[in-house]
Amino acid sequence: MSTVQNRLSIIALGGVNEIGKNMYVIQYDDDIIVVDCGSKFPDESLLGIDVIIPDIAFLLENKSRVRGLVVTHGHEDHIGGIPYIIKQLNMPVYATRLTLGLIKGKLKEHGLLGTTTLHQIDSSSSLTLGSIPISFFSTNHSIPDCLGIAFHTPQGTVVHTGDFKFDLTPVNEQFADIHKMAQIGMNGVLALLSESTNAERPGFTPSERLVGEHIHEAFAHAEGKIFITTFASNVHRLQQIINAADKMNRKIIVMGRSMVNVVEVASSLGYLNIPSNMIVEITEVDKYKRHELVILCTGSQGEPMAAMGRIAAGNHRQVEVSPGDTVIFASSPIPGNERNVARIVDNLFERKAKVIYGPGAVTGMHVSGHASQEELKLMLTLMKPQYFIPIHGEYRMLHQHRLLAEAVGVKASNIFIINNGDVVDIVGSEALQERKVPNGNTFVDGLGIGDVGNIVLRDRKVLSADGILIIVLTLGKSDNKIVSGPDIISRGFVFVKESEGLMEEVHRITLREVEQLQQVITKTNNNWGIYKQSIKESVGKFLYAKTKRRPMILPIIIQV
Amino acid sequence: MSTVQNRLSIIALGGVNEIGKNMYVIQYDDDIIVVDCGSKFPDESLLGIDVIIPDIAFLLENKSRVRGLVVTHGHEDHIGGIPYIIKQLNMPVYATRLTLGLIKGKLKEHGLLGTTTLHQIDSSSSLTLGSIPISFFSTNHSIPDCLGIAFHTPQGTVVHTGDFKFDLTPVNEQFADIHKMAQIGMNGVLALLSESTNAERPGFTPSERLVGEHIHEAFAHAEGKIFITTFASNVHRLQQIINAADKMNRKIIVMGRSMVNVVEVASSLGYLNIPSNMIVEITEVDKYKRHELVILCTGSQGEPMAAMGRIAAGNHRQVEVSPGDTVIFASSPIPGNERNVARIVDNLFERKAKVIYGPGAVTGMHVSGHASQEELKLMLTLMKPQYFIPIHGEYRMLHQHRLLAEAVGVKASNIFIINNGDVVDIVGSEALQERKVPNGNTFVDGLGIGDVGNIVLRDRKVLSADGILIIVLTLGKSDNKIVSGPDIISRGFVFVKESEGLMEEVHRITLREVEQLQQVITKTNNNWGIYKQSIKESVGKFLYAKTKRRPMILPIIIQV
Repeated sequence: MSTVQNRLSIIALGGVNEIGKNMYVIQYDDDIIVVDCGSKFPDESLLGIDVIIPDIAFLLENKSRVRGLVVTHGHEDHIGGIPYIIKQLNMPVYATRLTLGLIKGKLKEHGLLGTTTLHQIDSSSSLTLGSIPISFFSTNHSIPDCLGIAFHTPQGTVVHTGDFKFDLTPVNEQFADIHKMAQIGMNGVLALLSESTNAERPGFTPSERLVGEHIHEAFAHAEGKIFITTFASNVHRLQQIINAADKMNRKIIVMGRSMVNVVEVASSLGYLNIPSNMIVEITEVDKYKRHELVILCTGSQGEPMAAMGRIAAGNHRQVEVSPGDTVIFASSPIPGNERNVARIVDNLFERKAKVIYGPGAVTGMHVSGHASQEELKLMLTLMKPQYFIPIHGEYRMLHQHRLLAEAVGVKASNIFIINNGDVVDIVGSEALQERKVPNGNTFVDGLGIGDVGNIVLRDRKVLSADGILIIVLTLGKSDNKIVSGPDIISRGFVFVKESEGLMEEVHRITLREVEQLQQVITKTNNNWGIYKQSIKESVGKFLYAKTKRRPMILPIIIQV
Repeated sequence: MSTVQNRLSIIALGGVNEIGKNMYVIQYDDDIIVVDCGSKFPDESLLGIDVIIPDIAFLLENKSRVRGLVVTHGHEDHIGGIPYIIKQLNMPVYATRLTLGLIKGKLKEHGLLGTTTLHQIDSSSSLTLGSIPISFFSTNHSIPDCLGIAFHTPQGTVVHTGDFKFDLTPVNEQFADIHKMAQIGMNGVLALLSESTNAERPGFTPSERLVGEHIHEAFAHAEGKIFITTFASNVHRLQQIINAADKMNRKIIVMGRSMVNVVEVASSLGYLNIPSNMIVEITEVDKYKRHELVILCTGSQGEPMAAMGRIAAGNHRQVEVSPGDTVIFASSPIPGNERNVARIVDNLFERKAKVIYGPGAVTGMHVSGHASQEELKLMLTLMKPQYFIPIHGEYRMLHQHRLLAEAVGVKASNIFIINNGDVVDIVGSEALQERKVPNGNTFVDGLGIGDVGNIVLRDRKVLSADGILIIVLTLGKSDNKIVSGPDIISRGFVFVKESEGLMEEVHRITLREVEQLQQVITKTNNNWGIYKQSIKESVGKFLYAKTKRRPMILPIIIQV
């Protein structure tokens, strides 16, 4: 693959027309820089799949040109793909301290620590990868240490915002570099890639501090134990929970693997200020009175096996909800998770707890980490880009973001809504979207990366709906006569013991098919295919007529 | 089973601690009356199940005492179980004209018309079933012709509200019998069963007319074709859509099976007023200009195969969305359906349509059919019940409804939150909740009613996640020596052609297991169980270590 001279290319390998598995590529001449390497969770149609990562065939084809991976922040949809992809493509990783801390945890878990070089950067760093100088600006989001990135290519500056909001009163004084953004905009931005998650939401996303005030108020009114659950990675919120607990002289018990992990990483790196002796072990729960405790736990999305779910169901050995305890969901249910959250709230009410739950806009216990329309317009106004590519969102979000860009003055013909794999090439002053590179979803199932394809998934779908019926038949080598069988085995279709009549009929149909075929096909050994096909069709037709179900029918013919 | 004299029993067979499959039983002495016979849809864990209906073992045990089924209204969660249950328990059905029309449609579809007697009633009817006089009152809801029911037993009056809201400006002048409700309350209500769907919502649910105004406004601003989708059964909304189309001189094309069905039934029974020549066939679409058409279709919940879904995806042969057309979702996505609706909105934006979508509270295009807190308090105040049983809702809704009842003066000890199967017995002036009757979920899968149980579902779950690996082995009858195999077949686990190494190893492990066992077990024919178990365990362990997957492993041993 040859390289066009002086061509700047912007490529999405993941993150457009979807939420999750973000991966963008900036290429200038022979230098390729990757931004983020995320994962996403499969929808319910992808049976048995654990996680989805970007297809990186394009990067593997251009291995020698890849200069590094720059990571905007430490959320799963930006770092979750790293341990899977680093095995195939070993590139140096650049990220801020907290982000690196979380990446290291992942690499350690996969036994990959030390396989690649990790470089710590911050918003004041200057890098040159290949021939491309890169600078950064800090942004606000629902995790600390987030970066926006400016690629200063000879063709012009390309800005990638990462995920952001404008929180003008941020927790822990983590202010965004608004002056630096203005400076970059004044110097001229050729192309802006800006995130679109909340492009459908009017207004300005409230400050995280608002949640802190509501947490504090709820803590002040609570009488028994307080259980509070939120996204583990929202370190600012954890800090506000800690602050509120401190004011009320309550100790904190941390529960749930990811919560324990984030509290450890974030406090050891200085992102969480925890008064000494404040955190107590779960084993010490009985040493304290109910009004002296806050239980900070995972499970804010209603995951039944997370700490909150197990506590609500009464399945936790060491801690229980007593009548009058307060339970706070410091989160909004993500669409699709409402039912699971509702189940847990039901359980908590049965235990006579006071429960604060529902959308953050109602409870005040959650604000988004993403920019709403006014903030997206502010970013577009600061950057004044010549070309605009909305990223990080499903189509309607990209579409709404386009309308916002037009509203603040970006030329409609200079806005590109792209699909994963699409390339925007800028040569001279002209931008064109004409090329496509390989792209797609790579499925991770257990230890297999990319080995589960359409055939396996299609089979799982059939099996999941109606199960399987196996018909085993032994035929004599010399004469095709039946030696044993047909034996019929059902799994996930019907319970054989309760369906004897049906099974007898399958038995009869199979025998009839074999006898009919034996009269036509004699002494030829290669016609098992025909036997199998006829059994499959006749039995399938019969079962559908009788049950309106379509199990997978698998005839097995053995020749002895 | 003997009957306790002068005992009034109220039993839930479906509808409490869940949304759907409503079925309640009122028994006095030897007379049993059933209220509603609903169905509900399975959640995603119930693989392959089409629909869930109540377990009616209790009614079958008391067949001779069942005097009839009284139906409150024509929604699926109140009538969906009828065709399945009427086959096992033939009881006379009492319902209003529209409700009966919808029930007849169902019975016809199942070939059951004429198997049971159908009695048409209205809100002014008086019935006596067994020895129990029954009267009715009309209510407002998102389908016309809804009833509340009063059972005037010798012990006292039991009121069942059915689903309701208070719409003081109802479409088509279908006013609720608020004076009759007041009269019933004044005469004394022993026990009230009231629906709890919106018990978590503060305030008063807006009138359906509000939606009419927004539809009218949107129609007035639309330039191209108008596509509008809503719940087919919401006849009032259909009427308002027809009215708006009429004012704008647009013709209506009706699309989607359930929409066509409801428009037919409701207009032939006089519940829909459609100006003549207003409905045109889809085949006539080309005879009209874009601004002369409204396409009224199914698919408001994002069902990909419903009319709206197919049109948005460009899969409909006869009608397409053109740039500038208006698409209106006159509905709120039900929790769990947001993603499917979002997919369709994405598609519509790609076709450059103007789309009105999102929660009804934001768009004004949907209001609930259920009473909010102030209306629930109004019903409780009108009825002044001695005992109160919140029904029709998940636990947190029942719980909130209890708090509302306490707030308007019902004694806390007189409120019963019950589970399906629980019985509230009232003897003399005392109510007790001590008994339970058989209850549960009966699964319908294709033509099978209740034949899919836990074992089949557990198998489907295993198969759906990791597929199946079948190992076929033929052993000699006399010596247990291997005659053929092991042959290995994978479905939904891995694609065998791409996993040869893995399959070779399974082959080797199986042979090793068989050889080891042959040295221990000789010439006994009854030990296939041991062979199968050892193969299953060894292969399972190996595969989990290699792939972190747990396919169903099915060894088949044939003796020849």
